[in-house]
Formats: sequence, structure tokens, C-alpha cells
Amino acid sequence: MSFCHGLRLLYSQLPLFSRELNRPWCRYVSSSLALSSEKRASDFNSFVPRTNTCGELRSAHVGQEVTLCGWIQYQRQGLFLVLRDFQGLTQIIIPQDEAHSHVKKVLYDAPVESVVRVTGTVTSRPPGQKNPRMPTGDIEVKVKTAEVLNSCKKLPFEIKDFIKKSESLRMQYRYLDLRSFQMQLNLRLRSQMIMKMREYLCYLHGFVDVETPTLFKRTPGGAKEFVVPSREPGKFYCLPQSPQQFKQLLMIGGLDRYFQVARCYRDEGSKPDRQPEFTQRHLQNKDFEALKESAKSQFNQEVLHLILKPDESLKSPLRKFLSEEQQSELIKALKVQADDVVLLAAGEHEKVCLVLGNMRLESANLLELRGLVLRDPTAFHFLWVVDFPLFLHKEENPAELESAHHPFTAPHPSDTSLLYSEPAKVRSQHYDLVLNGSEIGGGSIRIHNAEQQRFVLETVLKEDPELLSHLLEALKSGAPPHGGIALGLDRLICLVAGAPSIRDVIAFPKSFKGRDLMSNAPDYITPEELEPYHIQVAWPAAEAEANKN
Amino acid sequence: MSFCHGLRLLYSQLPLFSRELNRPWCRYVSSSLALSSEKRASDFNSFVPRTNTCGELRSAHVGQEVTLCGWIQYQRQGLFLVLRDFQGLTQIIIPQDEAHSHVKKVLYDAPVESVVRVTGTVTSRPPGQKNPRMPTGDIEVKVKTAEVLNSCKKLPFEIKDFIKKSESLRMQYRYLDLRSFQMQLNLRLRSQMIMKMREYLCYLHGFVDVETPTLFKRTPGGAKEFVVPSREPGKFYCLPQSPQQFKQLLMIGGLDRYFQVARCYRDEGSKPDRQPEFTQRHLQNKDFEALKESAKSQFNQEVLHLILKPDESLKSPLRKFLSEEQQSELIKALKVQADDVVLLAAGEHEKVCLVLGNMRLESANLLELRGLVLRDPTAFHFLWVVDFPLFLHKEENPAELESAHHPFTAPHPSDTSLLYSEPAKVRSQHYDLVLNGSEIGGGSIRIHNAEQQRFVLETVLKEDPELLSHLLEALKSGAPPHGGIALGLDRLICLVAGAPSIRDVIAFPKSFKGRDLMSNAPDYITPEELEPYHIQVAWPAAEAEANKN
Repeated sequence: MSFCHGLRLLYSQLPLFSRELNRPWCRYVSSSLALSSEKRASDFNSFVPRTNTCGELRSAHVGQEVTLCGWIQYQRQGLFLVLRDFQGLTQIIIPQDEAHSHVKKVLYDAPVESVVRVTGTVTSRPPGQKNPRMPTGDIEVKVKTAEVLNSCKKLPFEIKDFIKKSESLRMQYRYLDLRSFQMQLNLRLRSQMIMKMREYLCYLHGFVDVETPTLFKRTPGGAKEFVVPSREPGKFYCLPQSPQQFKQLLMIGGLDRYFQVARCYRDEGSKPDRQPEFTQRHLQNKDFEALKESAKSQFNQEVLHLILKPDESLKSPLRKFLSEEQQSELIKALKVQADDVVLLAAGEHEKVCLVLGNMRLESANLLELRGLVLRDPTAFHFLWVVDFPLFLHKEENPAELESAHHPFTAPHPSDTSLLYSEPAKVRSQHYDLVLNGSEIGGGSIRIHNAEQQRFVLETVLKEDPELLSHLLEALKSGAPPHGGIALGLDRLICLVAGAPSIRDVIAFPKSFKGRDLMSNAPDYITPEELEPYHIQVAWPAAEAEANKN
Repeated sequence: MSFCHGLRLLYSQLPLFSRELNRPWCRYVSSSLALSSEKRASDFNSFVPRTNTCGELRSAHVGQEVTLCGWIQYQRQGLFLVLRDFQGLTQIIIPQDEAHSHVKKVLYDAPVESVVRVTGTVTSRPPGQKNPRMPTGDIEVKVKTAEVLNSCKKLPFEIKDFIKKSESLRMQYRYLDLRSFQMQLNLRLRSQMIMKMREYLCYLHGFVDVETPTLFKRTPGGAKEFVVPSREPGKFYCLPQSPQQFKQLLMIGGLDRYFQVARCYRDEGSKPDRQPEFTQRHLQNKDFEALKESAKSQFNQEVLHLILKPDESLKSPLRKFLSEEQQSELIKALKVQADDVVLLAAGEHEKVCLVLGNMRLESANLLELRGLVLRDPTAFHFLWVVDFPLFLHKEENPAELESAHHPFTAPHPSDTSLLYSEPAKVRSQHYDLVLNGSEIGGGSIRIHNAEQQRFVLETVLKEDPELLSHLLEALKSGAPPHGGIALGLDRLICLVAGAPSIRDVIAFPKSFKGRDLMSNAPDYITPEELEPYHIQVAWPAAEAEANKN
């Protein structure tokens, strides 16, 4: 069995002959090891026979003979076409004279989105025809030769950002959806942001990038982990939800400052009713009744409203229950001003906070729908959430405790002694990072003392510490105090890009049901293919019956 | 179901109080987005209360009060100790006066490999006691306060590079093995090399780093792919052997220049006799008979030797079969000089080449064991292998063809017409990269024409093209000509680091049988845990019987 980590790269180009590969490639690879970080000018025209990209020609290039490759964005009456690549658009003038009739035919016949190579001369656009909104809008290329590198069939949708496509069509033809301006921008932004993070961690703070295994042992109680059958009968790997244990072992191993852009696997099952995290709410509810209904239906909670009219009198269903004095006390206590609206709820503290927090957001959405800008869309507001409880009472059995974060989180230093007497009162050294209201990361200072870790596992959580014996052993072997944080890159990049869904910042996302709509994964495989893994499908009764017939 | 990509980092430190986290952390995160690449001085002392690492104090620091944290490398008679962190070693002088008796006791009692924090003054070492082989050998730190942050139990082996450890012990206690100088160096080199590659690709050539899914659909005939059961009865994902299809779809999607440091999964099964790729051979065979035996046992091939003695006569078992004239013709044809040894083999061309290539390496090893340096250990010799055949005859049925590389490799442009008449004669645009005799990478120019791809799949390889219908569809949608390469980072870094095995450049490698010896993965899981995935273990008869009893 082998596990390889590979650097894989692909680039689109004209075919290279293998005999030409021999020397130049060898030179490229060897030189890459000796590069200094000073030379930074990106060269998009390396390796390929084109002279320029479709985004870079300007007035300064007028008179030059250039070779461009790209997709046909559109073509008009055999007169001109617009060529697109990942850098931009260039207008191409199709020759109309007899000597170039072949070129005209080639370009006239080529369907939209075909890949072509053209060679021609950069010329200034005639007066009045320059396009200031287009970076290459000062020039056009008069074509002399043209070749269709690959013709394009009729597509299920046009590659134009203003064309509305259904989500499932976008996913099914993801390779076409990726050609959109927005997806190109998002994926390139993602690449750049992660590169900046790497530079910050590696070069400014001496972090080491370490890859940890993704085929690992099942975590006790890891119900959301995917299982992977091995060739040993009955034995399974798991795809870990996070590199949790490996991170700690690296600290113990002296890899002092570690980071990783890690793939995490969480199998949350198929929930057909699961809603996207980032879809925007467009509410019909235009008044308090609707807000109240929302509180009732979402949280089964009564909410009352209270308005201070310009004449300083209260308008509220509550009014008849309050004396004049109580009313003015309330106005004073809440610092209510004329035309203010107050929403009130009574009940268990945590629940009421949740409901009112929600009402606050819904109110803001309502006001913004009416044109009042409450939140600056260009601002990035970060917030740390700290002082979480270390343990929570189990919902199904409040006499038992479970970890609020995970069993490796350290207690707050001020509360350490409470751990042994009143564990439910201990605060944790767990912290969450919130950006513009969305959680984008979290982490904790970890327990580095083996005895404390064993106490938490065995006595507080009633778990079998033997399942984590390798970690307990490691903590006894000179584990330094340590802590860390994990940032959710999908969410973070989504917020920075202003994308409506995290699927807009992932090249090949799965659907909410975990499906790949393009290739139709997951899919059936034969019993013979399962044999080496010593497993068989346990068909639910109905299917088993259907399969028999 | 959700799939998250997280940036995860951990650093060892003194415990931070969560109330202190609030502002400084927030600042760190927001500033990371605005970093320029100019500021490059790495700051290892950021975030933590230590003032210096154990590797940086010099004569210039004499007189300064410093705080160091690290592991106790050794301690001698309560007089001094050596403190180690990932940057180096510093000698610590333990105070002997009554006023510091507590400090003396703390450090005297602390076992080796305990984690301590000390504060003290940098002083010059007395004349004659400086250590020029140690970067911090000019100074020592006179300690005033000391604290054991975590005590260490007795370890299964000492953290000293010269202590020999068995491979299985190293793997079982990988977190201790990682503390060795060599493993620290290897993993940090790996991180730096990959960072340089990223800089080269991103900044110099405009490549985009794109993450592709690792839960995918099974490839037709992908016998070495791990299967991952989903919650839909009978449906499985697969862990792909490479991002093969996604790479091509990114090209078609206009992500023009893509790279990824990708995790690849190849299940080659448990082969107990499988040998490490990089273990060095130490042969007992000191003569030709041993070489011949090796050829016989490894390849079932007879090999004869031939020596030209200084008197120009031949010494060879072949001699009696050759006339004087034939002997001198042979000497001339092979350009044999006095004292040369020639190894001869007869048989099928490809097999004989393989055997003789192997004998050549074994001969070189034999000579190097005797002290003759044939290969410069500091040299990096790169070699491209090109002009592979596109198809091979199947061993089990030579009338049928299979892909030499994979079915997506393009034919050599000069041979394209042969594809339709004599496919077995077509050369491919597949290329392999070899470094110092080891294959470190390979790739190909891909087929971008849907009709050609369908012809290869359907007519030449007799595979069902419907299984790859999404790829064929995509090729029709304006796929640009494209190609790429994948480098095996484990192997490449192993060669650059001069490590004996790829397991020395991987933080947590699996054993040859695919086991994690530290956590004991893969492991048994209960039938209840398999229920959500609709699978059950198909126990081989013997085990099933044993499980019953």
C-alpha cells in the first residue's frame, strides 16, 4: 500500500512535441529549486507559443504582430469576434479581402466557445469606436491566420454572467460554470488569499507546513466520520473530521509551529431539508406581526412590541398591564426615544437571547430591504467569542456532561480547581472567531498534562481512556503547553469575495445531499469490487426485495 | 453533509488567558490579509513570552536578561543543563548559592526531555570553555528562575540521533522520533521546498492553486481505489488515485494554469513481502557468482562474466566456445580494456535489458562498498524519458491492448494517423522525469478531441465510454489543448534530503502493510457503527467461525 503526496499541475497550451520537452523542462525544474523570492513579475506567456494573453494589449502594442489563443466569446456577421482567455477580452477583426477568404470562413464557421489561435497585427481602433470600459478597448487585432484548435458543440447555457442558470444546471456543467467571470475571480482570489496566509505563517513567523494523514483510526464517538474499509477483514480506516490528534502530536514532536491547509471530512448525512448556510432571506413580513410569527414558528416564543410615539406615549399590547409610572420607568430603563421600536420576550435566559438575536437580524434585513443601509458591505468586523463553558449537560441526560468544544480543550486557568469539584462551572480556553456575524474559525488552548486529560476523559466524560492511550502516553513524554486555531477557509473566502454561497468559492462542490451532480457520485459498485474489502451491502428490506425481482 | 477546507495551525506556547486573546488575536488575523511580501524577517518569538529561541544567543547578547523555553537535552550533576528547541541548543548554568536553592532543586529533579522555562542572564563562557562547534557555544545563561511546564516520564529511547532505534519503535513513538535533528531538518526542508515551488508557480508563472475533491466516483477499472460507503444504500464514493479528471475539467473551465499539492490514494493491498523502495542493499555477494545468483533468483536469467586479463587473454566460461578470432572480435566490439569485466546475458530483449540494468546497479553498489566513489552524492542528475508507446499488449491476452500510461494520453502528433490503423505502433506524448535514477514525476499531453478520446476508449481499449460521458461531453465544449505533469514530492524531497526512505520525509507515514503503528489504524469497528452506511463485514470463513466461538 502506498500513499503519495504529489505536486500536480496542468496548463493549457498548444501541443508540445515530446522531443522539445527534453531540455527546456529539465531546466525549469532544476531552476525552481534555486529561485530567489525577488523576481516577482508573473509571466503568463511562458511555455506556450502565444505572444500575449487576451487581457494585455494596449495602444503601446500597435503595429506588433501577435499570436493569441482563447475562446470565442461572440462573433458578429463574419466581421469581427471577441476572443476571451483568463486574462481578458480582445476584439479581433476578420479580414474581408479575397486573399484571406479561408481565414474568414474558419472564423465565421467556428461556433461560439470554440478554442482558436489567431495571428495578426495590433491596430488602433478607429476614432469613436474605442471602448473605455474594456482594458483592451483602445485596440483591435487584424487577423492574418486563424486555426480552430477545438470546436465547441451547442452548450446548455451561454457563458455570460447575466444569463440566469439553475443551481443544478451549474453543478452538472461545472466546467462551463467555471468559465464565468465571477467563478474565475473567486477561485483566483482563493488561491491568492491562501498564498498570502502561507507567506505570513512561513516567512514572518516560522511556521512549518506539515501534511497529516487522512486515513486514520476512528475517533471514539466519531459518528460523523466516513469509514474506509481496508483489505484486512473487519478493519476500517476513518477520514478524520480534523487533524486534531496529529496536530497535538506534532507539538509533542517539537514541530513547534505547525500549520496545514487541511481537508476535513464530516459526514452529516443526507438531510433533504437542509438549507444553504448563506442564502439570503427575502422576507414577506413587513410588520411586527410577521416578526412575531417568525419567533413563534421558529422558536415557539412569544414576542411583544413596544413603540414610543412622538407624543411620548407608548403603543404596545403591554400598555394596559402597566401603570403610568411603570411605563415611564420602562422607557427610562431602555433609553427609548421617540419612534423607537422595542421587541420584548420573556422566558429562559439562553432561549430568549437566541430569539431576540434572531429578531434583531430580521429587523435589520427588513430595514435594509426598505433602503436603510445598516451594515457596510465593504467593512470586515471581527469578533472573538471567549469564556465558553468547558462542559455542557447532555440534552438526553442532564446528569451527564459532554464537552462543549472537544475533550482536549484546557480549562480556564482561574477555574482549574473547579474541574475536580464542580466541572459544570468550569470555563474553557476555547475561542471562536466571528466575521460580520459568521463564525469563521475556532480553537483552543489544549490540555498538556496527562493526568488532567485522563481525569477529563475518564471521570468527567465517562469515556474509555484506553481508546486514546497513544495520546495520553504522548502527553507524558514532555508535551509543551500548546494551543491553536482553525479557520474555515470556504466561509472566510466566501465573505471576502462577497459570494452568496460557499459553493461559489469551491471549484467542484458537492450538493447538499453530498452528491457530485457532474459525475453522479456516489454510485453503485459491484459486489465483486467490494470483495477485496470484505464488505457487502446490507440492503434495507424494501430495496432487497426490489433487487430480487 | 458538509466538506470543509480549513487552515489549521497550532503552536506551542505558554498558556494564554482567554481575556488576553480578545484584542491581539483579532489584530493578527486582520493584518494577515494586508501583508506585503517585502517584510520577510521571520519572528520566532512572536505570540509567546520567551524572549529568544535556544538557537540564537551569541556574544552580542551578553548581559541581557532572557527567557527561554525548551526540552532538557541533558543535565549534569546539578551544575548545568542543555536546553533544546527547534532552533538549537543553549547551555544553562544552574545556580549553586543558597538563595537559589529552589531553582537548583527544580532543575536537578526534572527528568530529561521535560519542558522547562528559565529566566536568567546571558554570560560569556569562561576562557577555554567555548564550544566553536555549537552556534551558541560562546555563551551560557546563568539562571535565576526556573519552572517545569511539563515533566517527562522515562522514554522508550533517548532523543539522540546516534542512538539506533528499530523502525517499528520509531513508528510507534513517532512523536518522539520527530524530535530528532534529522526529522526536524527533513520536515522543515519539505515545507520550504513546497513553499518555493508554490512561489515559482504562483508568482512567476500565474498558476492558480485549486483544491479538487477527494470523495469522487469510482474510475472504470480503478482496482486500487479505496471505496467509501455513503449513507445511500449500495452507493459508494472513491478516494481517487489522482485528481486526473478534475485537472482536465479545470482546463476546460478556463482555469488555464492549475496546480495542486494533492493527496493521492492508492490501495496496493497488504503485501507482507513488499520491500521498501529506498532501503540500501548491503550485499554478501563479493564476486561474480553472487551477481549471477542474484540474476538467477530475481529474474530467472543466466548471466555470464568475461574478464580481459592484463596479458590480453580472456577469462570466461564462454571462452571454450569461441575461436581466437571470435574472441578478439568480441573484445573489439565491446571496446574491452585490460582488467575490465563484462557481464553477458542472452534472451528476450526487454527482459535482458532489465536484468543487465539491475546488474549494473548491483556492480556499482559492490564497488562503492569497497570505497570506489562512482556516483557523486551531491549531484542532481535529471533525465527525461520520452517516446513511450501509447498502448501495450495485455499480458494475459496479447491480442488486446491496454494504455501504457492512462487512456487520456494523446498520441504523438507524427503517429496520429497510425492510431486508426496500427494502434500498437503509436508513440505517446507521455514523459517521465528521473532524478539520480529514481522516477520523480511523469505526465502527458492529453487528448482534447472528444472523437479521438471516444475512439481510444471504445475501439482501442474496448471500454464502455458511457462511464466517462461527463468527460466526453466536456471535451466537446471547447476544451483547449492541454497537458501537465505530476511530481512525486515524497520521492523528490527524499532525494534532495539524502534520506534513506520516504518515511523519513513524511510526518506520520504508514507501514508497508498500510498500518499506523502509533494509533493502530485500521481497526475493528462495531456492526452498529456500520449501519448508517448500509454495509456489513463479509468475514472470511475461518474468522467467521472463530468469531462464533
